[in-house]
Amino acid sequence: MPEMTRAIAIDAMGTEGGVSICIEGVFDYLTHAAAPHRVVLVGDETTLNTALDRDYAKHARRNLAEVAHASETVEMTQRAADGVKKKDSSIAVAVRLQREGKVAATVSPGHTGAFMAASLLTLGRLENVSRPAIATFFPTEAGSTLILDVGANPTCKAQNLLEFAIMGSVYSAAVMGNATPRVALLSNGEERSKGNELTLAAYELLAQSALNFIGNVEGRDILRGRADVIVCDGFVGNIMLKFAESVRGFVTNAFKRQISSNNFSRLGAILMGPFLRRLRRMFDYAEVGGAPMLGVQGICIVCHGRSSARAITSALHMAAKMMDADVNAHIINALTNGVRKPAETT
Amino acid sequence: MPEMTRAIAIDAMGTEGGVSICIEGVFDYLTHAAAPHRVVLVGDETTLNTALDRDYAKHARRNLAEVAHASETVEMTQRAADGVKKKDSSIAVAVRLQREGKVAATVSPGHTGAFMAASLLTLGRLENVSRPAIATFFPTEAGSTLILDVGANPTCKAQNLLEFAIMGSVYSAAVMGNATPRVALLSNGEERSKGNELTLAAYELLAQSALNFIGNVEGRDILRGRADVIVCDGFVGNIMLKFAESVRGFVTNAFKRQISSNNFSRLGAILMGPFLRRLRRMFDYAEVGGAPMLGVQGICIVCHGRSSARAITSALHMAAKMMDADVNAHIINALTNGVRKPAETT
Repeated sequence: MPEMTRAIAIDAMGTEGGVSICIEGVFDYLTHAAAPHRVVLVGDETTLNTALDRDYAKHARRNLAEVAHASETVEMTQRAADGVKKKDSSIAVAVRLQREGKVAATVSPGHTGAFMAASLLTLGRLENVSRPAIATFFPTEAGSTLILDVGANPTCKAQNLLEFAIMGSVYSAAVMGNATPRVALLSNGEERSKGNELTLAAYELLAQSALNFIGNVEGRDILRGRADVIVCDGFVGNIMLKFAESVRGFVTNAFKRQISSNNFSRLGAILMGPFLRRLRRMFDYAEVGGAPMLGVQGICIVCHGRSSARAITSALHMAAKMMDADVNAHIINALTNGVRKPAETT
Repeated sequence: MPEMTRAIAIDAMGTEGGVSICIEGVFDYLTHAAAPHRVVLVGDETTLNTALDRDYAKHARRNLAEVAHASETVEMTQRAADGVKKKDSSIAVAVRLQREGKVAATVSPGHTGAFMAASLLTLGRLENVSRPAIATFFPTEAGSTLILDVGANPTCKAQNLLEFAIMGSVYSAAVMGNATPRVALLSNGEERSKGNELTLAAYELLAQSALNFIGNVEGRDILRGRADVIVCDGFVGNIMLKFAESVRGFVTNAFKRQISSNNFSRLGAILMGPFLRRLRRMFDYAEVGGAPMLGVQGICIVCHGRSSARAITSALHMAAKMMDADVNAHIINALTNGVRKPAETT
């Protein structure tokens, strides 16, 4: 089926909210994309076909949604190593379809660790990439910043951070349309002399590179939007991401306590509704969409388990953009030619 | 002057808002503390005496505020190494008064790096402490969590994190009144197997210790208040702290954009005022007060340069509590006896 090559597979069993959330996201994508790619929903075919027949039988683009059967699912509570052993899980099948050339991208809101492991084992790494990384968008006052790595690699070498920077810069240029993305290194001070052993070494590599490297940025610079791409190891990135996610719950709970206190506050809350909703959404990564796994030989987008239909839609748009912009070819090119490789790396 | 021993010195030139902010904070403390300690305001004596005579000549506790002259100030733009060379700066004098036994605590909203260096050089470390740490309170749904280190040590060993945990636990018990503080290690996953080389090694030391160690916590657990004390290296802690500080500006700006959009929102903002103010304050560490430097042979409280009078007041209360609870004696005791020291440390 050569016409399927540019399709997107989605692990339809992964969303905590159930398959209907995922299917709704798929049809939102099919409805609104100008030239949508075919989507292959992976999971229990009876469940999926029943849901499709019930809700989308008459949808104008129903023919762009297919089902591929997978008999198992990876449970969120499983260890990644165990999850990846399930060879017929919706994650495994959705990734395998990509290796077999039947789709060109895979989206999963399922078990992140199992998805990452399956992607790496099944698809492998891009040429010259020593470690793939997960990249996430943080909201900023100016738009958004791509931060990587946010969890794939708790321990990194300077060379890894350089590669993250190159991959992030390519992504920002090709997908986000930033002509010369500002690339920064997350550190505990702006000065070149600030940092730990890893960032001090990475600074030197980045400064020598052909990237538009603007130096160190601090924790406070993220939301200010001082850079388009910020690199850090997956330990720091993961802690930052999870802290940022939790701000939403904190704000929401503080808000609920206040509106239960008196009627003036209740009225105020109604009038301020749009602001508060926007604020909560800004910090809710389950709403934002997907996080691309950069450096794998293929296109893999990680979604939050709590993904809304809106997040699924935006992850599908992201997969389509990565396909259309041929991001991986640009990454290979940048890693091979774009950056002077220092003789010794730390 | 033996009666001065239990006094507090404050670097009165350090606040970005000017000496009057600092003096206001001092008199708020003197007014509201049940049994206030004497406060020595350090800085240009003409400036300080003029301000005191003008605003507080008739204050009932005017006699508890003294002035000690310092001819210089450390500029915020200076490098710490240069700042600490100014031997007659308000920071240097405020720390020296402590070494000379004329005060028992020093508070500074001035140059953090210079204050830290002066404290270490002038007062030295407590017995068995290899590295002092700066501890800060993060707001939580349940109250607050003490996080350390937030910047003194970008690179740490496992033994350092163990010491931070012991010092933080002692502080939480002695000053915050938590009988058996829950101590946690900040990591990228809850499982014992998650982390980087540092946290994996620190986990083992903490698990062997006599502390009430509850294991790893993730970024999302901080605001949820899952632990009373959270330890991390100063690189991660500094990035987290500065990110958290910046949330306030982000919320405020999003809020301003919304209220300028229409009259309903403006009315809503007025009615929701108390909530929004509280929310902003929760993330504004300039409002919260001071951050104790734990592990120095003395009591040193770091304040934010942008400190409000309220923050100065709360830093003075904090210094008084540390004095009254004899925190350092407890730390020495815990480090010497309270924890089984493993044969080998990483």
